[in-house]
Amino acid sequence: MAGGGAAASALSSPWRALLQRALDANAHLRHSTYFQLATVGAGGRPANRTVVFRGFQEHCDKIQINTDARSNKIGEIRICPFGEICWYFTDSWEQFRISGIIDAIDGSSADPAKLQHRERAWFASSVKSRLQYLGPQPGIPILDEGRVKDVDIDPSAGPVDAFCLLVLDPEKVDYVNLKNNQRLIFTRSKKEDGSSDWMAVKVSP
Amino acid sequence: MAGGGAAASALSSPWRALLQRALDANAHLRHSTYFQLATVGAGGRPANRTVVFRGFQEHCDKIQINTDARSNKIGEIRICPFGEICWYFTDSWEQFRISGIIDAIDGSSADPAKLQHRERAWFASSVKSRLQYLGPQPGIPILDEGRVKDVDIDPSAGPVDAFCLLVLDPEKVDYVNLKNNQRLIFTRSKKEDGSSDWMAVKVSP
Repeated sequence: MAGGGAAASALSSPWRALLQRALDANAHLRHSTYFQLATVGAGGRPANRTVVFRGFQEHCDKIQINTDARSNKIGEIRICPFGEICWYFTDSWEQFRISGIIDAIDGSSADPAKLQHRERAWFASSVKSRLQYLGPQPGIPILDEGRVKDVDIDPSAGPVDAFCLLVLDPEKVDYVNLKNNQRLIFTRSKKEDGSSDWMAVKVSP
Repeated sequence: MAGGGAAASALSSPWRALLQRALDANAHLRHSTYFQLATVGAGGRPANRTVVFRGFQEHCDKIQINTDARSNKIGEIRICPFGEICWYFTDSWEQFRISGIIDAIDGSSADPAKLQHRERAWFASSVKSRLQYLGPQPGIPILDEGRVKDVDIDPSAGPVDAFCLLVLDPEKVDYVNLKNNQRLIFTRSKKEDGSSDWMAVKVSP
């Protein structure tokens, strides 16, 4: 589920090695791939929820998250595309705050490459987890509890309309290790050729 | 550290009983009192960090968090006082999203009752954790690593300038239990006499 391990070491982003080390050190914990994603919601208020890390996009640092296109956050992200992940590793006492721009990719995207990423994310998730996208819209009142609709899914069928892939492109990573009290802030800048350059500064925790 | 247990059962807020049950069920985990607090920071972007639950304020549902008055979030909260806590309990698979208004109380507050709450929070924290407020300002670059200043603190001395108490007053609580797939949304309304009324709605997860 975590993924991106092999690619991490091949990349220059200096925080990727730290993150991969934390993922490895906490891999025995189911929740080590869960983090909290903050966005700005209705009325300019912050919104915060636990989501699952679905790996990095190939050959880059973009972080993938699966979500339901019918949840509030999709509309909110389209209005304000900024996000900050807070990823706390409970065994190694390390925190990564990763901020960047979020792209919400549903079936209406006009970009074939993005649609392909969405399709790959769909097939990379378990058949059981795909079933949730066939259930009722998240957050709507349950009026008729007695009627539980049996849903079935063809494992070879592509993504359903409710399936949305979120892709966060990191711009800044604030890392802190509470065991040795070290804190590093990584900031991205774009080079002339369009590639990324990361600068690291050691700061007080 | 968790606190507020006895008070919880005496209160009418229906989500308090659920939260207390989750705190009890996860009490064996050090990180069960850690949660992620999202606010809106510079440029209207979301900010998200792990903080420690310091209990409820007496006789009410307000959630207390200790922080450094010199961190960015204080200025940001004064501009946009909205916050959303995301509290995920890793053993019982329960999530509480608690949103509300944050009051940042530092030594400059003109309200004697608030200053008293701040003083109580100071003395309720360990002497070791008080030491961090005497260290360098969080987030500033470390230029001189060789010079580690020895700091000492008088255990009977009151809060230092850098100590700030955050108090979040919950307005909405979105609870989900991933083991039984139950989700409840609690919304607060104010009654004519100024007291709070909570409404619960069962929604699809």
